[in-house]
Amino acid sequence: MKHFFEPEGVVVIGATPNPVKGGNAIVKNLLMSYKGPVYPVNPRYKEIDGLVCYPSVRDVPGKADLAIIFVPAAQVAAAVAECAEKGIPGVMVESGGFAETGAAGAKFQEELIQIAARTGIRIWGPNCMGLVDVVNGNIFSFMNPEWQKEGMLIPGRVSLVVQSGMLSAVFLVDIMSHALTGIARVCSLGNKVDIDGCDILEYFMEDPQTDVIGLYLESFTDGRRFLEIARRCEKPIVVLKGGKSKKGAQAAMSHTASLAGNSRIVSGMMRQAGIIEVRDFRQMADVCRSLSLIKPSSEGKRTAVITFSGGAGIVSTDFVEEQGLSIADFTPETKEKLATLFPSWMPVSNPVDLWPAIESHLGSGVDVLGLALSAVLADPGVDAVFMHFSAGASRLLPNLPALAAEIKRHGKPFVAWLIGRQDLVLKTQKEALAAGVPVFTEIGRATECLTAAIQGRHKPEKTPEIHPVDLPPEMGNILSAAHGAQDEHFSKKLLGACGIPTVREAVAGTAKEAAGISAELGYPVVMKGLLPGNVHKTEMGLVRLGVADGKSVLETFEELTGAMENRGSVLIQRQISGRVELILGLLRDPQFGACVMFGAGGISAELFEDTVFAVAPLTMKEALGMIDSIRGQKLLNGFRGSRPVDREALARIIIRLGEIGLAIPEITEIDLNPLIWGEDGVIAVDATVVLA
Amino acid sequence: MKHFFEPEGVVVIGATPNPVKGGNAIVKNLLMSYKGPVYPVNPRYKEIDGLVCYPSVRDVPGKADLAIIFVPAAQVAAAVAECAEKGIPGVMVESGGFAETGAAGAKFQEELIQIAARTGIRIWGPNCMGLVDVVNGNIFSFMNPEWQKEGMLIPGRVSLVVQSGMLSAVFLVDIMSHALTGIARVCSLGNKVDIDGCDILEYFMEDPQTDVIGLYLESFTDGRRFLEIARRCEKPIVVLKGGKSKKGAQAAMSHTASLAGNSRIVSGMMRQAGIIEVRDFRQMADVCRSLSLIKPSSEGKRTAVITFSGGAGIVSTDFVEEQGLSIADFTPETKEKLATLFPSWMPVSNPVDLWPAIESHLGSGVDVLGLALSAVLADPGVDAVFMHFSAGASRLLPNLPALAAEIKRHGKPFVAWLIGRQDLVLKTQKEALAAGVPVFTEIGRATECLTAAIQGRHKPEKTPEIHPVDLPPEMGNILSAAHGAQDEHFSKKLLGACGIPTVREAVAGTAKEAAGISAELGYPVVMKGLLPGNVHKTEMGLVRLGVADGKSVLETFEELTGAMENRGSVLIQRQISGRVELILGLLRDPQFGACVMFGAGGISAELFEDTVFAVAPLTMKEALGMIDSIRGQKLLNGFRGSRPVDREALARIIIRLGEIGLAIPEITEIDLNPLIWGEDGVIAVDATVVLA
Repeated sequence: MKHFFEPEGVVVIGATPNPVKGGNAIVKNLLMSYKGPVYPVNPRYKEIDGLVCYPSVRDVPGKADLAIIFVPAAQVAAAVAECAEKGIPGVMVESGGFAETGAAGAKFQEELIQIAARTGIRIWGPNCMGLVDVVNGNIFSFMNPEWQKEGMLIPGRVSLVVQSGMLSAVFLVDIMSHALTGIARVCSLGNKVDIDGCDILEYFMEDPQTDVIGLYLESFTDGRRFLEIARRCEKPIVVLKGGKSKKGAQAAMSHTASLAGNSRIVSGMMRQAGIIEVRDFRQMADVCRSLSLIKPSSEGKRTAVITFSGGAGIVSTDFVEEQGLSIADFTPETKEKLATLFPSWMPVSNPVDLWPAIESHLGSGVDVLGLALSAVLADPGVDAVFMHFSAGASRLLPNLPALAAEIKRHGKPFVAWLIGRQDLVLKTQKEALAAGVPVFTEIGRATECLTAAIQGRHKPEKTPEIHPVDLPPEMGNILSAAHGAQDEHFSKKLLGACGIPTVREAVAGTAKEAAGISAELGYPVVMKGLLPGNVHKTEMGLVRLGVADGKSVLETFEELTGAMENRGSVLIQRQISGRVELILGLLRDPQFGACVMFGAGGISAELFEDTVFAVAPLTMKEALGMIDSIRGQKLLNGFRGSRPVDREALARIIIRLGEIGLAIPEITEIDLNPLIWGEDGVIAVDATVVLA
Repeated sequence: MKHFFEPEGVVVIGATPNPVKGGNAIVKNLLMSYKGPVYPVNPRYKEIDGLVCYPSVRDVPGKADLAIIFVPAAQVAAAVAECAEKGIPGVMVESGGFAETGAAGAKFQEELIQIAARTGIRIWGPNCMGLVDVVNGNIFSFMNPEWQKEGMLIPGRVSLVVQSGMLSAVFLVDIMSHALTGIARVCSLGNKVDIDGCDILEYFMEDPQTDVIGLYLESFTDGRRFLEIARRCEKPIVVLKGGKSKKGAQAAMSHTASLAGNSRIVSGMMRQAGIIEVRDFRQMADVCRSLSLIKPSSEGKRTAVITFSGGAGIVSTDFVEEQGLSIADFTPETKEKLATLFPSWMPVSNPVDLWPAIESHLGSGVDVLGLALSAVLADPGVDAVFMHFSAGASRLLPNLPALAAEIKRHGKPFVAWLIGRQDLVLKTQKEALAAGVPVFTEIGRATECLTAAIQGRHKPEKTPEIHPVDLPPEMGNILSAAHGAQDEHFSKKLLGACGIPTVREAVAGTAKEAAGISAELGYPVVMKGLLPGNVHKTEMGLVRLGVADGKSVLETFEELTGAMENRGSVLIQRQISGRVELILGLLRDPQFGACVMFGAGGISAELFEDTVFAVAPLTMKEALGMIDSIRGQKLLNGFRGSRPVDREALARIIIRLGEIGLAIPEITEIDLNPLIWGEDGVIAVDATVVLA
């Protein structure tokens, strides 16, 4: 990848002196930014923007690591082939007219894939905006050269990947000119015939100039590889995934010719990998900026709120609490320090409405904002600070470099909500970005970004170990012979053999056997009629709960066998008492393979979709994270008098279900519904295994 | 209120020539805006800013309808009294130092209340920023006069009420200078000793220059009056309610010395009144602007999405679907029209990625954006349009006045998402506001505002009729004698007498009676032990479901009376079969009085808080709106094979419960849990009435 990011010598195929064309913009951008030699190539010109222009790549006199290609699609393959001959290791194809334009273009794209396979040359694009490296000044793109000239590019420590071409250019100038984020590099990948998001993610992981990675993605070309890389990454990753709705996914499919994916599984994978998911473009810039500026030493959530109006403090407090942070209680020392700033009638509390203090020190030269901020930062009960700034009123806007130094000294997360006159707001935003102070123009965004910075630091996980699944040989035989949904008893036998705790049960062939089994299991028992190929026992009236004694067992046996017209068998189970019903499942996703699903059972799953997904295999932390993510947490914390659920035991079952999915490819689906938490722990009471 | 908004003659008490003081800013603002006579009052000066200054109000030679007072709090009462003597009907007290500053200030505030009561003079404030009337140029405020001078105030048809003083000034300059909204009037009300939000809301309702009303509120001084006014209002109302979280409510209480209120009841009241609730300040400005610019003729949701990049179209589509709008299917005619713009390889669908069409017409002079927009606006299957603009690229930004005219001609809601270079974005925002085109810089905000404009038009409701509650005399006697929670049977008898459908049941004194009652009700029956003062029947094991025959009734009767040690009686009910469990309740809120609560029953209410509130009495539309608002709609639409719930019948029960609460003040609380939808309709199976 180094050829693309730090090339020695760049060739521009399709260079032109015509200033309205992209082929000229590429040369101009290189001349303004790139420090190595630039070789324009075009048989029609001798000179372009003061550089010697060569008729073909073959004629280029020096060494080049990269060729940027901007000629009509029909000519691209030949140009790439020449580059390969010349020994250039990488090309960036920025022209469009490939698969995104239908069959003819798809043929051109296919040619590129073949040349790459044949020659080993790496291809970035086609149909992309290339690379904008702000920090090192490597602008390998047809973006408007005026942007560079006007100094619009603000260097920073956030690197971005934006799949879409047009969008990446406009988005870049939007966030830069609004001082929303300082940028290290932006990569536009286009049709991804070779270099894809995973390649760039791996490069940014090791890139010393990148602290935060933001990606706009419409599809995952290799979902499992993406998860693997993200899991190992020590830097925060922020993802905006397009195509999460039904119609959005259809649009994404026609745009990128690849599956947008099941959005709930994609979201589950991101949570699992510790990725911060965002929903909008500027929000992505804001969250990335926060993560690059705020590096908290703890995950403490006790927040001080400092404003200069009661209303601002109240709404800010609403957001702080809604985001899951908490309002700090100040120590008596902090209250005393603040009280010296306030008029005597004003009680000091959090949120701090600083206006009376500011008003009573008007013209005194006392730095009320600075003193108040220092007091709360020094409070051991304060983990983070939210502050209100107003641009244009000097007493409502602290000295930003001094403030930045004070914040850094305490190492506590800080955000500011900035409002005021537009010109002064923009000026303050730029100064704040330069000083490293995160400011936002909406309270909600400010608190959201504070929360992301506190909770969203990325803690890399090792790839989970996979414990083997050793099936008894007779089960292996059944697996290779059977197809479709398996009956409850066999499903549980299989799962039990693989280490999933299941309810104690046995099949009775005769009424007498039934009575014997029941006596051994202990009353009450559950009796179910098993009909081959039937997974709708309840709907068919073949389930009897609370069978209380031997006499009832005999009667029920006759009833069930009668209802099945003597074709099935009768399953007898110990009746599990427990009020906490959960569901757990295994499924195979076209993009991610074996995935697990976990949720609240009963009507909760049905009415409120309170289920979460993850990609197998899972680490213990990831499985516990799944359990922590369902909304119905009350169900797990001691519901209606039951003990709190043993989350580790439950997590082990989730992990194991994923391992089973990975070990046994014949299984297409597993449903454990319900899984009951009761006296005997977490136990699968009903189960269906579906074989291919 | 006309004295405040259109006074003939304004006195400024506390005027001063010192340009850094508020008393000078008030005069300067009047001189630049107000067309009538201005009378500065201050015994220390003869002249201020070219105007004659009078030693006291008594010396003012002409008529004045309004006095703006900006003297220290201790001197305000005397000044107000002089104004009353002079016959001035209204004063605006803008100085602080009253109840918000503790006991001494509270005394000054109390004096104001007494003068108002004694003289009938109306008081606005104290501790406020006054009135900024942009349209008529009545700036009765100490806001920075530079803002007027620089032409920063943009007239429009949105009027705002902002409780907080400091905030209203900074918020105003923020939204104006960012071209977020054109404003008719902004009122800052401060401590509200007399004029409050309801007064202003009533004034704005009739104000021909106001189309949309936005309020930032921390408390409701008279919640029921607010609901009544809002219900009648024909203009959209947008409310940001501060103090919705626990700590936020505490902060609001200390800020305004009034209850912030139960946030779920406040939200319920707003939904009931058709108020659009927002969460943040700029969001309020954005939503108000949208409602003032977009006036759809229908509530159709079929939306066309036009962008110039695939990625933008995909994410926009995600938001459109998430907001509950839908992606329109174009007619063949529209597809044909669009196809003429596109290269032949490009299939036309919604979202429309316009870039290939723009690219293929570069330099041709064809107005691709305009033609595409006209085509989709003319489509009878399109109700609304979302479009992407990019500032700075002329081919990605249509002619705004022409676009506005075209949109107006079709009468369909339209929003644009605007990104690009900051200076050009701001310029475009200003031009768009002037042309009446709603633009936003985030996709999420744009789609949210489109949705608010389509769904949030305010349809006024008449005050609901209240049907009387005629209780049998013996029940009236019990009501006046009893206290606390009443037993299930009496509770249902009372509710039944008031028109709430309850399960058929009777109390049995003997086993024989029990058998007789059961036979009459029909098997199976439910038997419950009623112990005086005990509302925890289930927990005490005094409930038996599914008692199947006469023999079991006799046995169960003995069991229950034994368990109660012969102290209670036994209630026998028809067993209702139905899978849809609901809950319904009545409660009394300190701010709003009798309120009803409705929700999904069983564990849904407990785990997911799927309940909604409204203030009694309710109209049919409001009660149906409550039912439509619970998340678990699947439960109501034919759950697990049951018929869809009869929403009108359910709404009638909700309305009736509210009427009972209004008619019988002795009742402090009613719980119907569960209310079951089954063969016999919607029926209360268990109920508790709590008496004061």
